[in-house]
Amino acid sequence: MNPPPLHIGLIIFPGFQGLDAFGPLDILNTLSWTHPLTISVLADTLTPTSTKSPLHPTATGQLIQPTHTFSSPPTDLDVLLVPGGLGTRDLAATAPAVSFIRDVFPRLQYLITVCTGATLAARAGVLDGRRATTNKMAFREISAAYPAVQWVARARWVVDGNVWSSSGVSAGMDVVFGWVDRVYGLAVAERIAKGLEYEWVYRDGREDPFAVVYGVGEEEEEEEKS
Amino acid sequence: MNPPPLHIGLIIFPGFQGLDAFGPLDILNTLSWTHPLTISVLADTLTPTSTKSPLHPTATGQLIQPTHTFSSPPTDLDVLLVPGGLGTRDLAATAPAVSFIRDVFPRLQYLITVCTGATLAARAGVLDGRRATTNKMAFREISAAYPAVQWVARARWVVDGNVWSSSGVSAGMDVVFGWVDRVYGLAVAERIAKGLEYEWVYRDGREDPFAVVYGVGEEEEEEEKS
Repeated sequence: MNPPPLHIGLIIFPGFQGLDAFGPLDILNTLSWTHPLTISVLADTLTPTSTKSPLHPTATGQLIQPTHTFSSPPTDLDVLLVPGGLGTRDLAATAPAVSFIRDVFPRLQYLITVCTGATLAARAGVLDGRRATTNKMAFREISAAYPAVQWVARARWVVDGNVWSSSGVSAGMDVVFGWVDRVYGLAVAERIAKGLEYEWVYRDGREDPFAVVYGVGEEEEEEEKS
Repeated sequence: MNPPPLHIGLIIFPGFQGLDAFGPLDILNTLSWTHPLTISVLADTLTPTSTKSPLHPTATGQLIQPTHTFSSPPTDLDVLLVPGGLGTRDLAATAPAVSFIRDVFPRLQYLITVCTGATLAARAGVLDGRRATTNKMAFREISAAYPAVQWVARARWVVDGNVWSSSGVSAGMDVVFGWVDRVYGLAVAERIAKGLEYEWVYRDGREDPFAVVYGVGEEEEEEEKS
C-alpha cells in the first residue's frame, strides 16, 4: 500500500490550455483544504507561461507563474498532471516537458493527462503498450502518430495501472474526480463536486458523447461485434 | 445597436477561484481565434495573484500574472468579467476591485459575474434593483447581506439588462456560453463547446439542480403558487 500522495506537479508550456489545468486544479485546491497536499507548477523557465494558442495569430491568452523549472524540480513528486493545448504541437518548445516526464515517471505514484497532454506522455514513451485516451477532434491524427499506445476512442477517461488519461479539455475534471474517488473516496469527490456546482456525470469514464460527435470509435465497436 | 465588444477585462484578487476565471477564459480565448478580441487581467497590483483560499490554512493555489492595475486600467473595456472565490469575503483586500467595478460599470457594454463574484458587484451597488444569481451554498447568506438585489435562487444563470450573473464556480462556463450565443450567435457557441468537449446543458439558465441540492428557492416556488 502506497502512502497517500502528498506532492502534485503540474507541467505547463507555451500554449497549454487553461481549462485543462484549472479544472483539475480547482478540484485539487479544494482537496487541499482537508487533505495535506502541495502543488508545484513546472515549466522550462520561471517566466510566466501563456495559454495563448501558437496556431492562431489573433489568439488571446493569460500568464501563469511557474514555481519550479524542469531542471530544478521538487524531488518528491508523487503525481504529475499534464495538460494539453495547441502548444503540444510545437515539438521543440515541449521537448523539455517531454524529457521531464520521461525522467520522473518511474518515481511517480500517478500520471494524469488531460486532452492532448497525452501526446507529451506518448512522446516520452511512458504510454507504450498502455491503454489511454485523448482529445477526440484530434484522435485519428494522434492515434496514427503514436501507434505504440493502445488508444481508446470511446472513453471520457481511461485508467491503465498508474496512468490516468482523459478526453478533450472539459474531460480533465472528470478524470480528476475519478482519481479523487479512487484515492480519497467517493464522499470526498462528491463533496468537492457539490462545492463547485459541478454535475459529475462521467463517473466510470466509459460514456463519451464526443467520440460520436467526432465519429471515432466505430472501429472498436466492429471489433467487439466480431 | 452597439458595436461588437472588443475588449474584455477580467478582475482578479487574492483567493479568486481559478475555474471561475479559466472556464470563461477558455471559451473567450477560443472565440479570439475567429473574432477580434483583447483580454486584460486587472488586479490591485501587477504582482502575480494567487487562487489560494484565505480561509484554509493548508490551501494550495496558483499564481496568475495581471496585465493592468485598477489604477491604470485599459480605457476601452467593453466587458468586465468578475470571478468569485473565498477571497471575496476579505472586504479590505477586495475594496479596490469593488471601486473599480463601480467606476467602470457605466461605460461597459456587459458585466458578467461568476459565483460569489456577484457580491463584489453588489458591494459596488451596480446590482441594486436588478435580478441576479450567485453561489447556491452561500445563497442565503449573500441574499440577506445584499437585500437591494433581486436575488434569483433557482437559476444556473440570469440576465438583467447588460448584467449576466451565474451560480457557483462551474456555472461560469454556462453563463459565458449563453452570452456568446446572444452576442455572436448559437453556431459560434456550439462550435466552441464542441471544441472543448463541453456538454452545454444549461442553455436557458433556468434549470438549476444545485438550488435543490442546497435547499434554496422553495420560497420563490411558494410565491409563484400564491
